[in-house]
Amino acid sequence: MAGSTYGTVFRITTWGESHGKALGVVVDGCPAGLELEERDIQLYLDRRKPGATGIATPRKEADSVEILSGVFEGRTTGTPISLMIRNTSQISGDYSEIASCYRPGHADYTFDRKYGFRDYRGGGRSSGRETVGRVAAGAIACKILKKLGITVCAYTRSIGPVEADMSGFDRQAALETPTAMPDRQADAAAVAYLEDVRHDMDSVGGCMECLVEGLPGGIGDPVFEKLDANLAKAVMSIGAVKAVEIGDGHEVSRHRGSENNDSFQMREGKAVKVSNHAGGILGGISDGDTIVVRAYVKPTPSIFRTQQTVSQSGESMEIKIKGRHDPVIVPRAVVVMECMTALTVLDAMMLNLSARMENLTAFYGFGGKQVL
Amino acid sequence: MAGSTYGTVFRITTWGESHGKALGVVVDGCPAGLELEERDIQLYLDRRKPGATGIATPRKEADSVEILSGVFEGRTTGTPISLMIRNTSQISGDYSEIASCYRPGHADYTFDRKYGFRDYRGGGRSSGRETVGRVAAGAIACKILKKLGITVCAYTRSIGPVEADMSGFDRQAALETPTAMPDRQADAAAVAYLEDVRHDMDSVGGCMECLVEGLPGGIGDPVFEKLDANLAKAVMSIGAVKAVEIGDGHEVSRHRGSENNDSFQMREGKAVKVSNHAGGILGGISDGDTIVVRAYVKPTPSIFRTQQTVSQSGESMEIKIKGRHDPVIVPRAVVVMECMTALTVLDAMMLNLSARMENLTAFYGFGGKQVL
Amino acid sequence: MAGSTYGTVFRITTWGESHGKALGVVVDGCPAGLELEERDIQLYLDRRKPGATGIATPRKEADSVEILSGVFEGRTTGTPISLMIRNTSQISGDYSEIASCYRPGHADYTFDRKYGFRDYRGGGRSSGRETVGRVAAGAIACKILKKLGITVCAYTRSIGPVEADMSGFDRQAALETPTAMPDRQADAAAVAYLEDVRHDMDSVGGCMECLVEGLPGGIGDPVFEKLDANLAKAVMSIGAVKAVEIGDGHEVSRHRGSENNDSFQMREGKAVKVSNHAGGILGGISDGDTIVVRAYVKPTPSIFRTQQTVSQSGESMEIKIKGRHDPVIVPRAVVVMECMTALTVLDAMMLNLSARMENLTAFYGFGGKQVL
Amino acid sequence: MAGSTYGTVFRITTWGESHGKALGVVVDGCPAGLELEERDIQLYLDRRKPGATGIATPRKEADSVEILSGVFEGRTTGTPISLMIRNTSQISGDYSEIASCYRPGHADYTFDRKYGFRDYRGGGRSSGRETVGRVAAGAIACKILKKLGITVCAYTRSIGPVEADMSGFDRQAALETPTAMPDRQADAAAVAYLEDVRHDMDSVGGCMECLVEGLPGGIGDPVFEKLDANLAKAVMSIGAVKAVEIGDGHEVSRHRGSENNDSFQMREGKAVKVSNHAGGILGGISDGDTIVVRAYVKPTPSIFRTQQTVSQSGESMEIKIKGRHDPVIVPRAVVVMECMTALTVLDAMMLNLSARMENLTAFYGFGGKQVL
Repeated sequence: MAGSTYGTVFRITTWGESHGKALGVVVDGCPAGLELEERDIQLYLDRRKPGATGIATPRKEADSVEILSGVFEGRTTGTPISLMIRNTSQISGDYSEIASCYRPGHADYTFDRKYGFRDYRGGGRSSGRETVGRVAAGAIACKILKKLGITVCAYTRSIGPVEADMSGFDRQAALETPTAMPDRQADAAAVAYLEDVRHDMDSVGGCMECLVEGLPGGIGDPVFEKLDANLAKAVMSIGAVKAVEIGDGHEVSRHRGSENNDSFQMREGKAVKVSNHAGGILGGISDGDTIVVRAYVKPTPSIFRTQQTVSQSGESMEIKIKGRHDPVIVPRAVVVMECMTALTVLDAMMLNLSARMENLTAFYGFGGKQVL
Repeated sequence: MAGSTYGTVFRITTWGESHGKALGVVVDGCPAGLELEERDIQLYLDRRKPGATGIATPRKEADSVEILSGVFEGRTTGTPISLMIRNTSQISGDYSEIASCYRPGHADYTFDRKYGFRDYRGGGRSSGRETVGRVAAGAIACKILKKLGITVCAYTRSIGPVEADMSGFDRQAALETPTAMPDRQADAAAVAYLEDVRHDMDSVGGCMECLVEGLPGGIGDPVFEKLDANLAKAVMSIGAVKAVEIGDGHEVSRHRGSENNDSFQMREGKAVKVSNHAGGILGGISDGDTIVVRAYVKPTPSIFRTQQTVSQSGESMEIKIKGRHDPVIVPRAVVVMECMTALTVLDAMMLNLSARMENLTAFYGFGGKQVL
Repeated sequence: MAGSTYGTVFRITTWGESHGKALGVVVDGCPAGLELEERDIQLYLDRRKPGATGIATPRKEADSVEILSGVFEGRTTGTPISLMIRNTSQISGDYSEIASCYRPGHADYTFDRKYGFRDYRGGGRSSGRETVGRVAAGAIACKILKKLGITVCAYTRSIGPVEADMSGFDRQAALETPTAMPDRQADAAAVAYLEDVRHDMDSVGGCMECLVEGLPGGIGDPVFEKLDANLAKAVMSIGAVKAVEIGDGHEVSRHRGSENNDSFQMREGKAVKVSNHAGGILGGISDGDTIVVRAYVKPTPSIFRTQQTVSQSGESMEIKIKGRHDPVIVPRAVVVMECMTALTVLDAMMLNLSARMENLTAFYGFGGKQVL
Repeated sequence: MAGSTYGTVFRITTWGESHGKALGVVVDGCPAGLELEERDIQLYLDRRKPGATGIATPRKEADSVEILSGVFEGRTTGTPISLMIRNTSQISGDYSEIASCYRPGHADYTFDRKYGFRDYRGGGRSSGRETVGRVAAGAIACKILKKLGITVCAYTRSIGPVEADMSGFDRQAALETPTAMPDRQADAAAVAYLEDVRHDMDSVGGCMECLVEGLPGGIGDPVFEKLDANLAKAVMSIGAVKAVEIGDGHEVSRHRGSENNDSFQMREGKAVKVSNHAGGILGGISDGDTIVVRAYVKPTPSIFRTQQTVSQSGESMEIKIKGRHDPVIVPRAVVVMECMTALTVLDAMMLNLSARMENLTAFYGFGGKQVL
């Protein structure tokens, strides 16, 4: 099982390598009747493109999406939506050197161990380019969620030592700054910091965060299919993510129960939590509060310094990576996190439709008549 | 989908509530020919039982496992292994009070939101008792892994502010101390600390860690079924876990690429990493090094202080939880983490069998003849 | 993958062998709020018990079901329902002889090929007793369908050369006659015929049919998850079934399009088909008409005549099967077919809930508020 | 769940409609190291193209396949193989008339019931063109099976009343005759018969058969994932198939156990069956003998006679279908059956790799070292 399918009822299957002819995704299980056009998807793909600033790779990726199936007269038909993005700017020559050795921090070695050989051009299937399929599919999930009053929003929390100040959270800044930080001052500091990093021929890690607002309570299942468990898988499946947390995350390990428990209170006739240490999930099920997910991303493994490694033929050697590489992964990964979160939440919402007998009865009515 | 099934080819389905007649698990896809008896499983169940020390609930849970199917003349037959643990010590009276209100930090509210009502006795399906099925199944996975030369070992890293000193890692201590710490001094400090916590009618969180040693490279799949993604899901599905990390985890966000990259080196004719910041996984696939997973656990939500909450009928109220509750969850969750890790690794190993044409050819031979 | 799980959202996992301690099933994904007690399930289990007549095995199987989890105060909670049936009347001695050779028409040989050895007592997991779990789970599915106005009803069409006359279809007869035929005259003829068969120390095959009435249109998915494809799998998974058909079945191969096409007509403001050659399914999706499924069952392989076979150690030998065996499988398999059909239809109905955007909008409302 | 994915470890996802831009399939889980080029796949696609003879539609479909990913330097890499076939000859004008009414025998009505509307051009996703994705994927499965010494071969058994004489089975004829019959005389008779059918502005059904030779024993799982159950689903999922049978099929219902049981005998030191009424499967598991599957196909629903139907707006009306339609579906469906059978068998073989502890031990060796 090569593992390129995600989701149970809203199910996506991605394909494509860094330097193949094209990349794409098949979205199966999208409800019929959603207005959908290429522009809806392009908007998200554009957010993962390398920007014009100094902090991202100077590669140009057009990443133009084409809808090949599943949409008729501007609406989804309920059948598979096939989306394709042609590769246009890949220069295979850049990578020929690394065909026969293992770059530290990359998947070269493990692919060889697993499959016996690998497509060495630009990381092949383990390249960050693999995420274009996720983002194209996630754009559709986000559009559906928006129609249901739910917004998903990811941004950069920190780059190396530079942290965004969340007290003046600025959503627009997150969409506009080169670092995707919701704080223009921190963004400027991070850009300057990244200049130093690049000058050192080095790279650096960072942290990103995703909020889901408007999600009703009751989403997610107990035991193995907990909403937080599936979010953890979704986010950890993004290359370079090494830690995932919900709500207060790793800090809970030092907290007391009396501070960590969120009390309930009635507000406008509704039970609400007075705080949100839980990050919107209790027992694996959404509690109606904002979902808070955080991901910690390792430094870009491709650095321009000389590194020690071994060759395929078993000899110690030095390697000096060339090519075009971002000094930090986070800003471009933010939209991928947003999309993986949206896909996970939507699938859980669809699975929740059959949670109660009264839902089945309301839907299929008496005498087997479908009432909706 | 109630979500009580875990795994693709080594697949378990757990069932049972805190105060029902029994709890259990069906293990489907276990290879035929494994020697198995109840004692193999009991050993693991005993590790999650409340101990005799002051830090765990004084409840007595016999947790005697019975093998109901799938084993014949002492060996597994390849058909489903049904394991049952009868509930013996549950006192429903303790919980009647909380039937109509929502305990902070518990899943009472979210179960009501999802299902319309809930089995309020002891948390029902969201109780920690649900994990007996996971541990019973995990014991089998661990036995198989051991036969393949792979060991899985979890322990407590910290309880509140008390951290184990990993420099003198003492595996035996982890099995014997009441805190499951691999450091007898830290254990003593943690036990003293927990006395204070209990005296404050409070609880505290902690951190646990799991190592997988001996795992060959090549296990796990690229993209969505990455080994680390599945480990994150497995571990986050344990109630009370709020953060999961691999290798250096959340600290990578402040690291430089030059420190985070693990160089390769030849050692005894084999490529090995000289460090293990990656935690044994590159690009979602095991690299032959030790797998390192960490989980951060929130404080036990059941504390004996008065807390603010609301009732099912929508009134603000105070609640004072009675009953028997551990001041910290970690020591008893350690074996659950070990089992979830084992189940995840074994399933990935089984799925890896068909990764290469040469494996199929070696197995089924020429002319369709099975050679093994 | 031992393959003991069936269904995607209404998902069952069966376990247990002919001569083990017990058999059972875990039903996961049952909606919350369904009234359920053991009697609901016992009713169906009793229908697959050997009767008092001469045509069934004189074995006595109490088959008393116990609900171990998932039901609280008389209603399902949405968590796994574990059902167990203790084995009481198994006499292992009867089977010791066949431990080391392969009975013709049985799975002895193939289990040995697959697993290296087998539980030889009474067929182990390949015994007809395996179906008690399916029937216990199916009883729940039938109860849910009934609440939605849908009935599932299976019966015997023929036993050897004796066919039921469908013109005077008598549903009560199907429940009361020893052959499960909906025709008391044919039943009498079949009973007499079976006496001859038994006298010849032989067995015979037959045909069973299942109708689903009241199912709304729109259930089932195009392409691989067609409703008829899933029914074919469900029914073919019943041991001894060698052919499955929908509507006119194998006879369509000789029909012309002009006779086989069902015309549409308006009736009471609704489009209906004037005939039902299609058996209620077009393009894999229910059309609102009665679903018609038929299964052809091979003769019981256990016959009391001397047969040629080989031993495990590779020698030709003769075998004369002893024990207690029905001369025809059909009458007891009818309720299994009914249950597998119900499970398949219910799962498809649940998956259909997310087929349209307007359903999601109606359910989750605007602003993410759950309206049901 | 739109249901466009098939298989567990060798998993395909098809997409595309009759008159969309393109159709295709993503093959995930294909083992690494298989030599693969477009010609391997084109060979199979060409077999489902309408021929030059009078019996098939005069439409011209180039059906040129393009490999978009998953193959590097002529070999599969273990990552998803994306295959695309551009639509070139679709004339949407032909179908505009049927946009607002329901063709008898087609899925127009059921798609509208399910999704609220449909892509009415040429049947959209319910068109026979959907099968190009299945055939492209199946070609890869067939190539792998061939390397393991296993051949899959389907052909036409009968068209209307004309049956192939199986005594002089001629495999080459099956590949060359316009009817795909393995009997040139019957082919000639069938072609003449089809002329009459076409002259009557009618269509006719038929029967096709598929053999799997060289499959080792032990493939398939007990209970729900029986090999025959999965074959039944695979074959019934082909549009227009109304009955599926294994071995003697529906005729077993009239047979006695003494004739239906296949005796075992030692031959060249191996246990073999002396007959094959079982069709190569016992208890859901292959027995080493030839697998025999049969499918009965309904007459093409598109006939040129006037038919009664209703419009979307609920009025009775007459319809006269235009366009280009085969008078019989079977000859072009034969390769689809072959491919669905190959996909099913290969997936079962892959899942079988972990059936025994000794296989795991042989593969992963002692000390966790991978030995293959």
